[in-house]
Amino acid sequence: MPKLDLDTIPQTNATGYPPQYATAVEGRWYRRLGPASGLSEFGVSHVTLKPGAWSSQRHWHEGEDEFVVMLSGEAVLVDDSGEHAMKPGDCASFPMGDGNGHVLQNRSDSDCVFIAVGRKGDSDCHYPDIDMHLFSGEGFRRKDGSAF
Amino acid sequence: MPKLDLDTIPQTNATGYPPQYATAVEGRWYRRLGPASGLSEFGVSHVTLKPGAWSSQRHWHEGEDEFVVMLSGEAVLVDDSGEHAMKPGDCASFPMGDGNGHVLQNRSDSDCVFIAVGRKGDSDCHYPDIDMHLFSGEGFRRKDGSAF
Repeated sequence: MPKLDLDTIPQTNATGYPPQYATAVEGRWYRRLGPASGLSEFGVSHVTLKPGAWSSQRHWHEGEDEFVVMLSGEAVLVDDSGEHAMKPGDCASFPMGDGNGHVLQNRSDSDCVFIAVGRKGDSDCHYPDIDMHLFSGEGFRRKDGSAF
Repeated sequence: MPKLDLDTIPQTNATGYPPQYATAVEGRWYRRLGPASGLSEFGVSHVTLKPGAWSSQRHWHEGEDEFVVMLSGEAVLVDDSGEHAMKPGDCASFPMGDGNGHVLQNRSDSDCVFIAVGRKGDSDCHYPDIDMHLFSGEGFRRKDGSAF
């Protein structure tokens, strides 16, 4: 059925980040709606950020567009231009290659929920604030290419 | 800036439907967020349905995945399996080629708002309830291929 029963879709807080950068996303619980509902052209994540949790480390993709829309609660969008409150109904776009690292942070004392849309690409991802880089086809490494 | 100021993005109720099928979507006002914000990998529409308005004629795409999430108000999702209330936070997926015609109808007395994600493909679109078919590369015609 097209309408999704979110409770039946597995939820995880898994991350591929090395331990020193994983703490920020421990409270990020997400469901991958695309595979669960037969979508193959783009990815859709239903994300809950517990108080204090971040959506990711601040990052930008060389080859992947991203879009988010807030459903409930409140987050702070941090990017190169500063901090921006994201409330239900607020939308943000992150075009590939824009060089503007972004992250959503839940600084409130209650959960916030958003939908994130992307299209998996084999491209590098940059993390301006930390010594980490996603090398396409290789995974997370230090910026000099060495393994964690 | 990644956070979108929706008020600055043009809103339209334009449709390519022939007049006899256009009335249902006269009250469908939408903004194309992708082009306005630099996204090229998928399309994102921010849609307001006035009371009585439909999201489209009931349809399914041969070659385009679609996803919707409700932001405010309430709509009725009509598909082959019946009618389903769509309230804020509710999500629905319409995988390409599923053969399950779908439409959102606002039967309430206030606006409803949703986000629709898709990926423009050159593929046919089927309309099970009416004598219309979208022929890839040709546009809307009657099911026998004749022009309106």
